[in-house]
Amino acid sequence: MCGIVGYIGKQPAVPVLLEGLKKLEYRGYDSAGVAVLDETGISTCKTVGKLANLEEKLGQDYSKTCIGIGHTRWATHGRPSDINSHPHLDSEEKFAVVHNGIIENYLELKEWLIEQGHQFISETDTEVLPHLVSYYYEGDLVEAVRKVLKKVRGSFAMVVLSRQDPDKLVAARKDSPMVLGLGEGEYFVASDIPAILNYTRKTYILEDGEMVVLTKDGVTVTDFEGNPKSKEVYEVKWDAVAAEKGGYDHFMLKEIYEQPKALRDTMASRLGEQEVILQEFKLSAEEVKDLHKVFIVACGTAWHAGLVGKTLIERWARIPVEVDIASEFRYRSPLIDKHTMVVVISQSGETADTLAALREAKKLGARVVAVTNVVGSSVSREAHDVIYTWAGPEIAVASTKAYTTQLEGMVLLGLYLAQARGTMSPEKIGQVITALKEIPTQAQEVLEQAKDIEDFAQSFVDVEDTFFIGRSLDWNVAMEGALKLKEISYIHAEAYAAGELKHGTLALITEQTPVIAIATQMDVYDKTVSNVKEVKARDAKVIGITFQGNKDLAKSVDHVIYLPKTVVELAPILTVIPLQLLSYYVSVARGCDVDKPRNLAKSVTVE
Amino acid sequence: MCGIVGYIGKQPAVPVLLEGLKKLEYRGYDSAGVAVLDETGISTCKTVGKLANLEEKLGQDYSKTCIGIGHTRWATHGRPSDINSHPHLDSEEKFAVVHNGIIENYLELKEWLIEQGHQFISETDTEVLPHLVSYYYEGDLVEAVRKVLKKVRGSFAMVVLSRQDPDKLVAARKDSPMVLGLGEGEYFVASDIPAILNYTRKTYILEDGEMVVLTKDGVTVTDFEGNPKSKEVYEVKWDAVAAEKGGYDHFMLKEIYEQPKALRDTMASRLGEQEVILQEFKLSAEEVKDLHKVFIVACGTAWHAGLVGKTLIERWARIPVEVDIASEFRYRSPLIDKHTMVVVISQSGETADTLAALREAKKLGARVVAVTNVVGSSVSREAHDVIYTWAGPEIAVASTKAYTTQLEGMVLLGLYLAQARGTMSPEKIGQVITALKEIPTQAQEVLEQAKDIEDFAQSFVDVEDTFFIGRSLDWNVAMEGALKLKEISYIHAEAYAAGELKHGTLALITEQTPVIAIATQMDVYDKTVSNVKEVKARDAKVIGITFQGNKDLAKSVDHVIYLPKTVVELAPILTVIPLQLLSYYVSVARGCDVDKPRNLAKSVTVE
Repeated sequence: MCGIVGYIGKQPAVPVLLEGLKKLEYRGYDSAGVAVLDETGISTCKTVGKLANLEEKLGQDYSKTCIGIGHTRWATHGRPSDINSHPHLDSEEKFAVVHNGIIENYLELKEWLIEQGHQFISETDTEVLPHLVSYYYEGDLVEAVRKVLKKVRGSFAMVVLSRQDPDKLVAARKDSPMVLGLGEGEYFVASDIPAILNYTRKTYILEDGEMVVLTKDGVTVTDFEGNPKSKEVYEVKWDAVAAEKGGYDHFMLKEIYEQPKALRDTMASRLGEQEVILQEFKLSAEEVKDLHKVFIVACGTAWHAGLVGKTLIERWARIPVEVDIASEFRYRSPLIDKHTMVVVISQSGETADTLAALREAKKLGARVVAVTNVVGSSVSREAHDVIYTWAGPEIAVASTKAYTTQLEGMVLLGLYLAQARGTMSPEKIGQVITALKEIPTQAQEVLEQAKDIEDFAQSFVDVEDTFFIGRSLDWNVAMEGALKLKEISYIHAEAYAAGELKHGTLALITEQTPVIAIATQMDVYDKTVSNVKEVKARDAKVIGITFQGNKDLAKSVDHVIYLPKTVVELAPILTVIPLQLLSYYVSVARGCDVDKPRNLAKSVTVE
Repeated sequence: MCGIVGYIGKQPAVPVLLEGLKKLEYRGYDSAGVAVLDETGISTCKTVGKLANLEEKLGQDYSKTCIGIGHTRWATHGRPSDINSHPHLDSEEKFAVVHNGIIENYLELKEWLIEQGHQFISETDTEVLPHLVSYYYEGDLVEAVRKVLKKVRGSFAMVVLSRQDPDKLVAARKDSPMVLGLGEGEYFVASDIPAILNYTRKTYILEDGEMVVLTKDGVTVTDFEGNPKSKEVYEVKWDAVAAEKGGYDHFMLKEIYEQPKALRDTMASRLGEQEVILQEFKLSAEEVKDLHKVFIVACGTAWHAGLVGKTLIERWARIPVEVDIASEFRYRSPLIDKHTMVVVISQSGETADTLAALREAKKLGARVVAVTNVVGSSVSREAHDVIYTWAGPEIAVASTKAYTTQLEGMVLLGLYLAQARGTMSPEKIGQVITALKEIPTQAQEVLEQAKDIEDFAQSFVDVEDTFFIGRSLDWNVAMEGALKLKEISYIHAEAYAAGELKHGTLALITEQTPVIAIATQMDVYDKTVSNVKEVKARDAKVIGITFQGNKDLAKSVDHVIYLPKTVVELAPILTVIPLQLLSYYVSVARGCDVDKPRNLAKSVTVE
């Protein structure tokens, strides 16, 4: 995530940049900064915290120059701090860069630049960009940026400001969104439309591999080689509020659709051919081999991700895993010692019970690993090791992309532990990695079934009770599916291990109680189908979810949602997507407040 | 349990005995037998299985004599078999005895009798009785029985038939029910009224410590010393069906009320002052010390008992425990070796998934312990060790006394393991034992609040959704409370860890959603009260359950049910009783079929 804005034109740049950043705060809000070009060179102002902090720091006495760039950050590499905030500069402060995305090969580039005498001051990947521009600059900024683009791998939307070139901004995008705003005698570049909507409704939507030069007289779009590209003007018709949601009606839907990207970002630079690389993980292979026990501790949706983690770690790394709800874990004096790893999972990294559990685990001598979406959050600071999910800010209360990236975090951790302990061959690890690399594309395929699910959701408008069933990992996903529906549609949904229904809960199944049956785990597939028949025999309407090719499920249920085939351990990441969509559309159909359900808060910082 | 019948009079005894036993089959049905006295001496016919098997074996060609005794068995000591069936005889076949109850000191009596030259053929405790009568017999049956009563400890209702005394039956009771039927020229003795209701409605209800001599001319009731007792005739006004339920409207209510006795029976002869004695447990202290891990595997209500067991064993014996649903356990290749104990819990001992899990665990090399209510059941036969719950047959589908005695089984196992591992001092064990001995009486006190709960249950008639919350052991009981309500009233009840509600489910809480909050675990009491306030703030009606003396809970809830104080680990046994009563009365108020809820079966022998 992160939000970037650039301006060149006739007004003082700073107010325009601040106004734009305010509209992009949904993209990140852990720190912010601006850089403008005036007679003394590049002036920057950067500060940790919300945008209000930056405004305060800038005060009324800012430079009145008409060219500048701004940034609001959602930390990935390097915790939120003044120094890690953008814009970043080269050693001589000739170039300033704002960047959104991840430079995957930044470590090797940084080493190489240091050998060339460059000095770095931040922990970010971004800082290599101004240094690279400086390295390649021979009087032509566009040429220098073009050379930089050839060196970097990863995803980016970036804007470069140069002391030597006071008449232009140079921008480029690959796998990170970027738009141009076309004013009269003023031009804008930004991560997203809302940032410019106060000034113009005429835009160019940039494509991957496009590069732009902005002057106060116009913009030129080329490819990375310099070949001109012709662009069509896109006239924005939404209002500013809708625009912030990227055209989606709700943040939740937007975040559901962001999952392919979030999943791709989270695995970026962590996968070799047959190897998982967790740079942030400090535990040695010897120490991993010495682990006797893993606890996974979390709340709500993150707890559901942990339940999947248990199966993956036990199956792949052969370490016993116990999964605890954080509010229970901290009071039950769990049996923990220094051979215990405690994994805490929290989207915000500030969940009160999870944080307390982390502290309790540390006190008891455990090695603590945090899986969190917020760099610099409390759990990330206090844990020994961190695995970040790179899902970007999640605004809707009902978690979606945080969950799927947490599942991915569990996959990465499970493989990593198995690799360190030698419990899985490189070939076997390679097979899972190959499948994992397909997951973002497959997630996109699942999203393409949204219309079907929307239609289908209408039949849930008057439902008051429903059950989600499955065995093994399918059960864990069922729990998340039920929670989603509960949270935003207020339907009493409950998940059950499919084999357990007949021990009591079957009494509640009637034709008024639809059942969602998940059957992707092939080792228990037949058993699950038997359980489906049990509920079908009580006249329940049953929706099945399974892999493409499992045709026989259709015989036992009323409707089937098919998923692209993957290895069973990765299935939860795909399975939950139709459940998220179902909850979303049911909530909309019932007229509920999707993004802010009653009684709930996004980050639970009380016990 | 077990059902006994004795007859002396003018009709052939066998049909009367069979007719009576049929009405007592609810008291046990694993084997049955009769003994009559004819010219050749005592003739017996005994067979394993249901009563129908005995009828078939007897055929049409049975003795037409008018004196005899009969028995339908619910095994406690010794598995169901022809030989273990009652009546039992002495070596010379001079005396036949049917018995209901447990002779606690039978082992030492048996050894002593063997030293005296007596030969035993069965595994039962009962067999000592005819041998003792024979030992003391000097021509006066009544005198001999009186001497026997001085030697035995435990509970009993027994009837003795003697070859030397063809004109009488001698019966006695202590802590096991027994009634006399007063016909015209014929007299009956039985465990319960239904057995005699076809012949007479005039009865004497025997008290503890009473002994009876029945002849065809009348009955004489004395105390064990021979002092005459005067009895009042009790005229039965119920019909036979009601009588089978002991005057209760449903088996479930009867079984709820049987809990004090079931709890007392299950601890009988297992508690020293500061020591737990599990005779049936073969694992040595050394082997117990060598355990690295315990799995508890069960389904439904038994799984809920297992969840409590986890906390008790971890807290007391400091062994890590994992609790699994049987249908999940068997397919997930759990990490098991010979240092693993797997505890399976099943009321019937025939639950298909639990039995399969047991077999899987054995295959993986674990030591398997069964906790079951049915002697000779499949799990009892296949496990290495068994801890029987002595709750007697449970007829209602919704489990009540089986659950509380399973909890007691968990207490006994937890203490036993702690004792063997030396993780608890004898003093500390003694404290829990002292408290445990109070539990049956305290359970009785809780039952005395039934009227209040019945009144209160009326407010649930139109409820469709409710939540049960608690932390730690209270959460585990909440799960059982929710399941009970689901099973028999079809209300969608769900249990939640109190601290977890705010991570989603709080969205469902409104004034239409009553919440039952359990707060007996004093280490998390304040936290639970905070969570109660959270739901109260959403206008939910809240019923609290806590110990007497915790006055402040009343300030946060609408109604409080108070429990007698006990140690927190035993609280679940008491806490569940008001929840059982609530479910029962709500089910009745909603007009549901309490004993046979829709879609459910008592013993789930399919996967």
